[in-house]
Amino acid sequence: MPQTQPYALILAGGRGTRFWPRSRTRRAKQVLEIVAPGTLIEQTVQRLEPVVPRERIWILTNPHLRDEIIRQLPGVPRAQVLAEPVARNTAPAIGLAAQVLLQQDPDAVLGVFPADHYIARPAAFLRLVRAAFKTAAQGRIAVIGIQPRWVETGYGYVEFPDGRLAPGSLKPVPVVRFREKPDEPTARRFVESGNFCWNAGMFFWRADVFMNALDVHLPRTAALLRKLPPLSSRRFRTALETVFPQCENISVDYAVLEHASDIAGFAAGDIGWNDVGSWNAVYELLPRDARGNAARGEALFLDCGGNLVDAPAGKTVALLGVEDLVVVDTPDALLVCPRAMAQRVGEVVRLLEARKRGDLL
Amino acid sequence: MPQTQPYALILAGGRGTRFWPRSRTRRAKQVLEIVAPGTLIEQTVQRLEPVVPRERIWILTNPHLRDEIIRQLPGVPRAQVLAEPVARNTAPAIGLAAQVLLQQDPDAVLGVFPADHYIARPAAFLRLVRAAFKTAAQGRIAVIGIQPRWVETGYGYVEFPDGRLAPGSLKPVPVVRFREKPDEPTARRFVESGNFCWNAGMFFWRADVFMNALDVHLPRTAALLRKLPPLSSRRFRTALETVFPQCENISVDYAVLEHASDIAGFAAGDIGWNDVGSWNAVYELLPRDARGNAARGEALFLDCGGNLVDAPAGKTVALLGVEDLVVVDTPDALLVCPRAMAQRVGEVVRLLEARKRGDLL
Repeated sequence: MPQTQPYALILAGGRGTRFWPRSRTRRAKQVLEIVAPGTLIEQTVQRLEPVVPRERIWILTNPHLRDEIIRQLPGVPRAQVLAEPVARNTAPAIGLAAQVLLQQDPDAVLGVFPADHYIARPAAFLRLVRAAFKTAAQGRIAVIGIQPRWVETGYGYVEFPDGRLAPGSLKPVPVVRFREKPDEPTARRFVESGNFCWNAGMFFWRADVFMNALDVHLPRTAALLRKLPPLSSRRFRTALETVFPQCENISVDYAVLEHASDIAGFAAGDIGWNDVGSWNAVYELLPRDARGNAARGEALFLDCGGNLVDAPAGKTVALLGVEDLVVVDTPDALLVCPRAMAQRVGEVVRLLEARKRGDLL
Repeated sequence: MPQTQPYALILAGGRGTRFWPRSRTRRAKQVLEIVAPGTLIEQTVQRLEPVVPRERIWILTNPHLRDEIIRQLPGVPRAQVLAEPVARNTAPAIGLAAQVLLQQDPDAVLGVFPADHYIARPAAFLRLVRAAFKTAAQGRIAVIGIQPRWVETGYGYVEFPDGRLAPGSLKPVPVVRFREKPDEPTARRFVESGNFCWNAGMFFWRADVFMNALDVHLPRTAALLRKLPPLSSRRFRTALETVFPQCENISVDYAVLEHASDIAGFAAGDIGWNDVGSWNAVYELLPRDARGNAARGEALFLDCGGNLVDAPAGKTVALLGVEDLVVVDTPDALLVCPRAMAQRVGEVVRLLEARKRGDLL
């Protein structure tokens, strides 16, 4: 068996509009300090470092965020922070990274990780990551799923064979299939069966295995990416700008995983995973006072309960007699909404876009 | 009959803590632009000008506000903007002004007005003011009351003889008596009887008549004030700093009006009076959108109703899915509370005082 090295590909192209007004085009969720200390992408890199040192970490992001990410991640070679010329979802993004990596190290094993998730217990997580890399080095595709904590229709699911899902086990189980975001009754059935994990976007494969899978399941995109010159070539950037927009806009789940066979599944135990999907998720992660109020920054709560305040240094936020609100202040924009509506914050961003308020985006 | 001149005394010593965080020690309610255009004290002076020109307007305030008031009121002689060394409520304050005025014009007739009320229809108001000055010139004490629009326990009341209250009438009616802030059943009885007006703190008397009444009802304070040298004297300021703190801390209502006989009452008709007592009162004064949202500054309302936003230039406030809130933003402090709790904003100020947060007061 050849000597294989683990690489991490961190997908950091998201906009995170649900964190407006703190998140903006150039300050998306992954580069913000949502739960101290450190930004989400800093935490992601630090978490992985015991398994994947910074010199083998690759980042895919968008042109607006590249400079900030390079600034936040000293030790990660700047050439490995790639900006996608246009957004094309995860299949072409991972394909791009796999192709570039393959040119440098034909035996590269690639772990794909979202840049903007929170994991409270990294040691337990890393044990799974090591096992998944080992499995992938043998030529299989591996996935780490998250044991469901509630009936969620916003995530995809990974189905394990009946009775075989063993949270925290380092022994992989052959995945039955990937399931896209289900409706509520289906999600309920999934969760109650005990045979399903949430798909948290953490996949592992050899770069060559992934490109071969792309050849089969997304041949046009695979052919386009295989034409790219080496990253070190002067022609790389221009070629990428020509090729990438022609790639199909599709997720790796739909394009590859739902069709692949022999996927090795790991089910995470209680690793404290949180996708930090909205201000309400942030509320769940922060310490709270006796009445359930949480604050980043200076807040005064009078006859209040269940509120989340996020304010910059030098600002005092006083809440009087309100319940379960999200209050997010920034120098030029302020948001107030019920925590239960935190999922809808993106609507504010779309309204600002419609009003051409680029200054607030 | 001697030639009498009307003077206005504008009482501008209040702190207005219920308008925190916009109101601060040096930016109290009366010097803020609460309902555009102009600050409340600017509007008060402009409203009175057709009857009392600026050179006969006197202001009593506290040391923190004097410079700002002088800045806002060009044409009002700065010597006539007096700072009380300590707060001693309205009886000593009016006594001080009456005594100083008496030394300059023995026939002065003085109208007392709060600095921080709003009056939507000044012409109708001024007709009453002229009539009240005329009555006072004849040696009587006159009061302009406001016809009650709801059962209010936060104001004092002025009782008119049964069936004699005629809103808008320029013919004075002998007041039966002044009543202090009533409990709810009493207030209800007052309002339902049709014989009561709200006491809005607008009184008229000759300066000598007031000092004589003070001699009778508050003799110690009267004697102290009568010892003051003329305003033009170099000794005035030092004398005031010695004398004023010794005066009794009492309102003119309790000290004089509740004991005086032969008070001439005027009942205002619909002059659009509002004491701007809380953010909720401001809400009532501002234009509102179809769902009842009001804003000073730039606000975005999504699925919202009944909210008041007050924000500085350059700030955008987005409200999503909230009802009947007050949101007041300033560079260093932000307040969020239900409109129905706007009366309790002073509690935030007291909490900040307890925490020695002078920077936010």
